[in-house]
Amino acid sequence: MALKRIGKQTVQFIHPPSIIATSTIVGPKEGEGPLSDYFDTILTDDLYGESSWELAESKMLREAVKTAIQKANLNITDIEYMFSGDLLNQLMSTSFAARDLKIPFFGLYGACSTMAESLSLGAMVIDGGYADRIVAVTSSHFSSAERQYRFPLELGNQRPPTAQWTVTGSGAAILSRFGDGPKITHVTTGKVIDLGIKDANNMGAAMAPAAVDTIVMHLQDTGFSPDSYDLIVTGDLGSIGKEITEEMVLDKGYNLAKVYNDCGLLIFDSQTQDTHAGGSGCGCSASVFCGYIYKEMQKKNMSRVLLVSTGALLSTTSAQQGQSIPSIAHAVTIINDIS
Amino acid sequence: MALKRIGKQTVQFIHPPSIIATSTIVGPKEGEGPLSDYFDTILTDDLYGESSWELAESKMLREAVKTAIQKANLNITDIEYMFSGDLLNQLMSTSFAARDLKIPFFGLYGACSTMAESLSLGAMVIDGGYADRIVAVTSSHFSSAERQYRFPLELGNQRPPTAQWTVTGSGAAILSRFGDGPKITHVTTGKVIDLGIKDANNMGAAMAPAAVDTIVMHLQDTGFSPDSYDLIVTGDLGSIGKEITEEMVLDKGYNLAKVYNDCGLLIFDSQTQDTHAGGSGCGCSASVFCGYIYKEMQKKNMSRVLLVSTGALLSTTSAQQGQSIPSIAHAVTIINDIS
Repeated sequence: MALKRIGKQTVQFIHPPSIIATSTIVGPKEGEGPLSDYFDTILTDDLYGESSWELAESKMLREAVKTAIQKANLNITDIEYMFSGDLLNQLMSTSFAARDLKIPFFGLYGACSTMAESLSLGAMVIDGGYADRIVAVTSSHFSSAERQYRFPLELGNQRPPTAQWTVTGSGAAILSRFGDGPKITHVTTGKVIDLGIKDANNMGAAMAPAAVDTIVMHLQDTGFSPDSYDLIVTGDLGSIGKEITEEMVLDKGYNLAKVYNDCGLLIFDSQTQDTHAGGSGCGCSASVFCGYIYKEMQKKNMSRVLLVSTGALLSTTSAQQGQSIPSIAHAVTIINDIS
Repeated sequence: MALKRIGKQTVQFIHPPSIIATSTIVGPKEGEGPLSDYFDTILTDDLYGESSWELAESKMLREAVKTAIQKANLNITDIEYMFSGDLLNQLMSTSFAARDLKIPFFGLYGACSTMAESLSLGAMVIDGGYADRIVAVTSSHFSSAERQYRFPLELGNQRPPTAQWTVTGSGAAILSRFGDGPKITHVTTGKVIDLGIKDANNMGAAMAPAAVDTIVMHLQDTGFSPDSYDLIVTGDLGSIGKEITEEMVLDKGYNLAKVYNDCGLLIFDSQTQDTHAGGSGCGCSASVFCGYIYKEMQKKNMSRVLLVSTGALLSTTSAQQGQSIPSIAHAVTIINDIS
């Protein structure tokens, strides 16, 4: 069998799966941000005609999947597995969407790293010969996340400048053994890293060391340099986490300055949109990747991208019990025009 | 490439991975049950020296992994991926254990179906050539589950006869490309099924239709009959769910009577242990499979087993919003002595 593992935490695909279609759906605030032209659907009401924010989030995820399948000119029954997760307890958005879609389903939880986790496993399952087509999808919703993780919105609680704004959005990607589109060539799977940050209003700082660990491991394992990429993009570190990451990676000998950005900084204009340190949530890297990055790759404005979705694995229970915030990051290399 | 998919939802491995070692750790009540001789460690105190039940559960999961690795004569660094999940919000047990173990980590959520989910993905990743060795592990804890999903224990709430008792336990399995041990030959991945049950005190009835769907699909996809197996075992349907499953599968033309049992019925003596309809939780099928079934397979008392872990994908939020209980079941074929 040809070598698929390279280095310590990376695999390289023999038959890199193509991302043949994506779809995105976002909330009103995201639709007012700098990336608005890249999203397929922008909701005018974040309840999306449903009776709760959780059901609205689930509908977003379900519709993102359906639209992505349509854009790929496929039927739901052509999709062999759904790899999906979200931030809600017991993956409420995902579970209810999977019920309606009836696609064999692997539920994932990697907090905001879930988009890269779903792309990683989906790509392994296709390259390994277990499926021809899968869908990778995640979602988050500002209002369902706030009330689950923080405070009731009605409280009008003040947020510190380090706080991030959970993206209301979902992004779905169809991976296929056949067909055209940017290809997933490498996957670097993260370890859980925890340097002791306990402030749930400073998730960027908590997640940065996990992003650093995975980015450095990826570069070491593959022998790539930062310049091998047009864009290295973390999931939702925001302004504070991005700065920490850039410095810590530089300490390890890699200068990211020319190619590094963060989905949480791309999706909002923090100056005018009052989003403090930037966007966050599973839906952040999902909608930015499936919207902005995928479409720029299709236009050939970018050719080599490293998506590093980042997740903070805390819960309200762990925070209340005084625990620090374990974090994780998974990296996926997406490349145009290899064949 | 050789055919790996058979039928609609099943894959068949070309190089079936071996389960080279397992480990189990259970609480005091499980240690008083009929399977006590099969568990590696039986706790005398369900706090396990920790300050909360959640931390105790996380320690159980971590120690189960470490012990399984030791039993396989390996080091932690020999394990390339950890596939793991639990019932706590944001996978608190798993995330904190993964932090201590430092193994590249895929977080999974399939409620009580997670053990079969982790074995399924772990087996694909090994057979596909992405890893030589992985650990699949899950946990649950009666006390952490009760206060998260139901009521504070201090309330002394009465439980209806249909209720099940969450198993305090963890089971870990080391899958390897090399070495001896029962092999995983087939995996059938479930769809989410929901026939409208809303009673969170009757999870067996909610999950039974998902078990039926996956078992019937497995038999159709593979051409196996129930008699192809020495044991077909669901995860935690309990007495009510087991009866429903047996009847519904019979309606589809397959008679399970001679070979069918349920981990939730095996682990407790419901007559003397006051566990009502039987055991439940991620740790139920994990500890019964990694303890009783694995050891009986090693003794050659069983040769062909279909493990069908079953999960109820509800949350307290979905229940409070009046939603029914979506459920899922994943099936894994484990066979002795193929080569």
